[in-house]
Amino acid sequence: MSAIANTPKPPYFAVIFTSTRTKVEKGYGETADRMVELAQQPGFLGVESAREDVGITVSYWRDLDSIKNWKANTEHLDAQKTGRKSWYDSFKVRISKVERDYGI
Amino acid sequence: MSAIANTPKPPYFAVIFTSTRTKVEKGYGETADRMVELAQQPGFLGVESAREDVGITVSYWRDLDSIKNWKANTEHLDAQKTGRKSWYDSFKVRISKVERDYGI
Repeated sequence: MSAIANTPKPPYFAVIFTSTRTKVEKGYGETADRMVELAQQPGFLGVESAREDVGITVSYWRDLDSIKNWKANTEHLDAQKTGRKSWYDSFKVRISKVERDYGI
Repeated sequence: MSAIANTPKPPYFAVIFTSTRTKVEKGYGETADRMVELAQQPGFLGVESAREDVGITVSYWRDLDSIKNWKANTEHLDAQKTGRKSWYDSFKVRISKVERDYGI
């Protein structure tokens, strides 16, 4: 989770997940690590993550179907439920299509 | 920079800027703050930012023209130049169109 994702030439999709945390730990760190591991599914292109006052995790995907499958993954659904109930004060998920990129 | 951006209903645009830093300070913090202040231009919808191993700053925009104007801002161009030369080991800019969002 500690490097810039090595994504292919656009177009591809980005799921921008921004959140603020409660003080509840209850397996948060382990689940976060496990979700990154579990997300390595067909269509997964990479992930970037950092947290200060807000946490931002951007995962990259080949297409919308891959995102839909990941959202519906059973273990991920459990994590989403606990996230809503315990770990997050607030969060926002934004599904976006990357049209252009550049960098060094 | 410390909260989840209060963006309008999609569609709108997200510029995902991911970077790894060098050890060079040379005005980095001041410039980063100044850029957030300066970005409050027509079409700017909000910004979210966090840094650990990588820094992720996502800025939100009404349309591609607003992004183009921001990229071409004179003071921002200077900052981009110093960024490439001194502050960043590597970075990636991804221009994306947010098609859907949800949250709590």
